[in-house]
Amino acid sequence: MAPASPPAAHGQSSASSVPLRPLRVILGGYGQVGKNFHELIQTTNSPVRVVAIARRAGAAIDEKGLEPNPRFDRDTPLSTLIESIEADAFVDALPTDIKSGEPGLSLAKAAFKRGLHVVTADKGPIVHGFADLARIAHGADRQLRFEATVGGAIPTLNLVEHGFAGNPVDGIQGILNGTSNFILTRMLEDGMEFGAALEEARELGYAEADPTNDVDGWDAAAKLTILANAVLGVPIRFADVERQGIREITSRAMRIAKDEGYAVRLLASVDRETGRASVRPRLIPERSGLNVGGVLNVVRYRTRYGGSFTVTGRGAGGRETATAVLADVLSLPRPPQA
Amino acid sequence: MAPASPPAAHGQSSASSVPLRPLRVILGGYGQVGKNFHELIQTTNSPVRVVAIARRAGAAIDEKGLEPNPRFDRDTPLSTLIESIEADAFVDALPTDIKSGEPGLSLAKAAFKRGLHVVTADKGPIVHGFADLARIAHGADRQLRFEATVGGAIPTLNLVEHGFAGNPVDGIQGILNGTSNFILTRMLEDGMEFGAALEEARELGYAEADPTNDVDGWDAAAKLTILANAVLGVPIRFADVERQGIREITSRAMRIAKDEGYAVRLLASVDRETGRASVRPRLIPERSGLNVGGVLNVVRYRTRYGGSFTVTGRGAGGRETATAVLADVLSLPRPPQA
Repeated sequence: MAPASPPAAHGQSSASSVPLRPLRVILGGYGQVGKNFHELIQTTNSPVRVVAIARRAGAAIDEKGLEPNPRFDRDTPLSTLIESIEADAFVDALPTDIKSGEPGLSLAKAAFKRGLHVVTADKGPIVHGFADLARIAHGADRQLRFEATVGGAIPTLNLVEHGFAGNPVDGIQGILNGTSNFILTRMLEDGMEFGAALEEARELGYAEADPTNDVDGWDAAAKLTILANAVLGVPIRFADVERQGIREITSRAMRIAKDEGYAVRLLASVDRETGRASVRPRLIPERSGLNVGGVLNVVRYRTRYGGSFTVTGRGAGGRETATAVLADVLSLPRPPQA
Repeated sequence: MAPASPPAAHGQSSASSVPLRPLRVILGGYGQVGKNFHELIQTTNSPVRVVAIARRAGAAIDEKGLEPNPRFDRDTPLSTLIESIEADAFVDALPTDIKSGEPGLSLAKAAFKRGLHVVTADKGPIVHGFADLARIAHGADRQLRFEATVGGAIPTLNLVEHGFAGNPVDGIQGILNGTSNFILTRMLEDGMEFGAALEEARELGYAEADPTNDVDGWDAAAKLTILANAVLGVPIRFADVERQGIREITSRAMRIAKDEGYAVRLLASVDRETGRASVRPRLIPERSGLNVGGVLNVVRYRTRYGGSFTVTGRGAGGRETATAVLADVLSLPRPPQA
């Protein structure tokens, strides 16, 4: 088998000789993303130590580093862990509260105050507090990273951060919610009605009991808000996104579109010049690169000098999203050994 | 109009207060890529100064920085410029010699010896000397960057460098040559024969008088060699790539494939585990994300823990490729003011 170590990296040349110690992480949430992140650290033998975890049912603490699936035998709340445990970064893998961004927003502020970096898979704090958090992070000389909030394992934010110096992105279009895209795909390809396709999405675990986040466009609007703020530098708020969901779409409308060579997709788009952002069903030519099927996500970046390019992949999944969290954590500066 | 400045960047927090001076660049070659790079520096007001240029017809030197399209009134060869001009980086925008990698390979070595960083749009030195150059760059604590060698403006190498810590890429597939893809698209969609489609590609400026680089798979094999070495860390040589071009494909074979729901594409692929790399015509399902039309390029990365994702865009064009060169140059550390 060929070597599994990271490739001889393009552009890497720093010949640092200071011994570094592993990054110590406080983890909030232990659902699919948090647990997979913890397991990936072990699987990949990454220089990261999870020194404390808090989830709804309890907390676990070990300054030497916790094994995955520890006993949650403490009742220390996450805010207290952040206040009291020695660590380098706070990783927010809590469920997103799209309405308020809490508790992630307050926890991120508390973490910066303690001198921690913040990596979040939770969209809430970024959707509701990007400008604030970016300012606080800057003032504290700490990093705020949130690659996992948009597009799961698909590179979105980091891609633009590193790849597009001198070539600004002027517009973004995309399909940012896999669940609604799965439903539309079943309607388009198999003539199902919305209700039946939603039921199937539930059975497959793609849709939650209350599907409103997905099918009414809230989730896509949250991700679009993040892209607009972080990639375009357009300071729109969540409430500014024009939003229309897919509940009203009929299989008949779908069939008519298909006969004309189109698909109906829930398209998110934002333009730097106008600052306008919307999430709504749109007709997309069947052969367009934006017309991806099933649970795929797609993001198209319109750059000022380099044309457009498009990134496609699975936008969700605990393991996939955890890879984005890990990449963000591994990009943080590691402290020298004491 | 919304601000054109770079967006409030995800993850940026360094509050450096040391005044930095512009990067001084020696530019080799002044064709479409070199000239567009020079013009983009001005258009984008980037902190980069082109202090010397050498092209076949002469050289231009101005330590205060040359304007685009200067008078090439010197006859100093590029190697002498690298030996004698005070600069921070050498940018290789020379035409690629796919057989030898020269003169880019020797010039890059000379540049490192002088303490310059090297950014190249020229595939030659990377295809023929990646391991050597990476080692020399590392020893000199200088950077070697070559985003522009693969996929024009599409992020390929930088994307993986920054986005995939902890989640190695195990395989790559792609369409890496826009000219041959244009020809195949005309054959597939319009029933043209190879010769007629090639003629049209020539008329449109997509194909050169001698089309062998494009239609016999040399160009795609060169790019695949770069991806294999730099992204997968698989040390294949250019000659190791199994290579078959598209001259033998008939419109009849194309039609049969199409009737079965397939397209014929010149697919490049490499696998980390086996180390096997090939460029050859393959049947691709019409609805696959790898089936892109016209002059588009596509690269699909199979990651170990995060599934696959696919990047699509224009893989060529002077302006597009120049954006990748500029991004690489802007990623170099800027020296402090004297």
